[in-house]
Amino acid sequence: MAEPAREASMAEIRRPGARLFVEAALGPAVALELGPDQAHYVRDVMRLGEGAEVALFNGRDGEWRARIARIGRGWAELVVGAMTRPQAPEPDLWLVFAPVKRLRLDILVEKATELGVAALTPVMTRRTAVARVNVARLAAHAREAAEQCRRLTVPACQEPIALRRLLAHWPAGRRLLVCDEVGGGRPIAEVLAAASGEAGAPWAIMTGPEGGFDEAELEALRSLAGACAVGLGPRVLRADTAAVAALACWQAVLGDWSLTPPQT
Amino acid sequence: MAEPAREASMAEIRRPGARLFVEAALGPAVALELGPDQAHYVRDVMRLGEGAEVALFNGRDGEWRARIARIGRGWAELVVGAMTRPQAPEPDLWLVFAPVKRLRLDILVEKATELGVAALTPVMTRRTAVARVNVARLAAHAREAAEQCRRLTVPACQEPIALRRLLAHWPAGRRLLVCDEVGGGRPIAEVLAAASGEAGAPWAIMTGPEGGFDEAELEALRSLAGACAVGLGPRVLRADTAAVAALACWQAVLGDWSLTPPQT
Repeated sequence: MAEPAREASMAEIRRPGARLFVEAALGPAVALELGPDQAHYVRDVMRLGEGAEVALFNGRDGEWRARIARIGRGWAELVVGAMTRPQAPEPDLWLVFAPVKRLRLDILVEKATELGVAALTPVMTRRTAVARVNVARLAAHAREAAEQCRRLTVPACQEPIALRRLLAHWPAGRRLLVCDEVGGGRPIAEVLAAASGEAGAPWAIMTGPEGGFDEAELEALRSLAGACAVGLGPRVLRADTAAVAALACWQAVLGDWSLTPPQT
Repeated sequence: MAEPAREASMAEIRRPGARLFVEAALGPAVALELGPDQAHYVRDVMRLGEGAEVALFNGRDGEWRARIARIGRGWAELVVGAMTRPQAPEPDLWLVFAPVKRLRLDILVEKATELGVAALTPVMTRRTAVARVNVARLAAHAREAAEQCRRLTVPACQEPIALRRLLAHWPAGRRLLVCDEVGGGRPIAEVLAAASGEAGAPWAIMTGPEGGFDEAELEALRSLAGACAVGLGPRVLRADTAAVAALACWQAVLGDWSLTPPQT
């Protein structure tokens, strides 16, 4: 897989150290090795050497400081120090999206990760113009965005699934907001305000392909228990804009936007 | 100016005809010529010939159908027919943003246009890393996004201005939401709900550079009448994500998202 090259953002340049997602269990004095990509990023992009500190998270054990014990071209050995943030519950919000073209998809995954989705699910519809989705590439973007935005998890990036199959196995109790670019839905603010008692429940937001859902798909969506078509105003939004807009509204009203960024 | 090449979106491919912003006054039987870029788009991208219809708008006279009278390589003559939508008032919402890198800026302008901003103002702050803004390029992206999302206006794309100067001339009565990525602001949903009586007022949303505002800038913002810092949750959003997220929340609560897309 061609993993996207990672640049340091201004925010990272201002902050000392780097922040990395790792698979290994994290705990006091745990020793671990970085793979070649992360070692390159730490050494050659962030310009950190032996003795420097980085932040680590794995989606399970919270965030920890770690010290670079030894580092070379393409490898690094770290030793974990103290926990800086405990793992905490996060909103259970899925983004289900008909895939768009590659550049827009990369950006959508980045934004959705920053906006706190728990899972990203590409859905294939009749009018979806994109035939193939590189899930490993999505996962790499999601991981990088999670590192940068200081999440304690990386969203699950799932294999594409046919809409019919997804709806046939839709989990009972998971609410679904379908972004409707044609104008049949209720205003999103109204729907979210009415659902304010269900803030802790599992939710999903779905966007269709640029050509829209076809009539049979709309009928299947209308008949799904817990699904609701929502409108995003009088301008026809691109699918990726609609996804980001709906995620932001959901987080502001039902999600965790009463919280503030970590101060550590 | 290198104008970005325009591709047809799926939505355009499904819909017959193209939609173009023109400078000329629009009215029954008005004849007008397209410039080379628009003529190329109509002929070679949308593949329209003589007798085909396009939609035109100019930000003042509503939307009109027009027929292609004659077309060739790089030129086209149109004759305006009937009005399809009258001009209507739009939310008076500015986006004031510290410029980000080119690709992100292009996408931000597109999304902000779809999300209905009236004006786009690049603001130069002490930590703004981008030294130069190609305003003509921004305007081309804004125009294209306005054409695609079926707006009746194109946002005004303004020359970059220093933050100090902008604040010194801030229009009395225009409310300002400053996106605060560090966590000092009130949750945006709370601020917008409290302002629901001011939906018709002029507003602006401001995002800072990736390095954040410096202390003197924050102080100047805090002392501006009508300004309010808002928080966008516990994850540290990129500046372009913050802008899109805040615009969506504003439109959902105070803007025109109770309206639906035109059905013509």
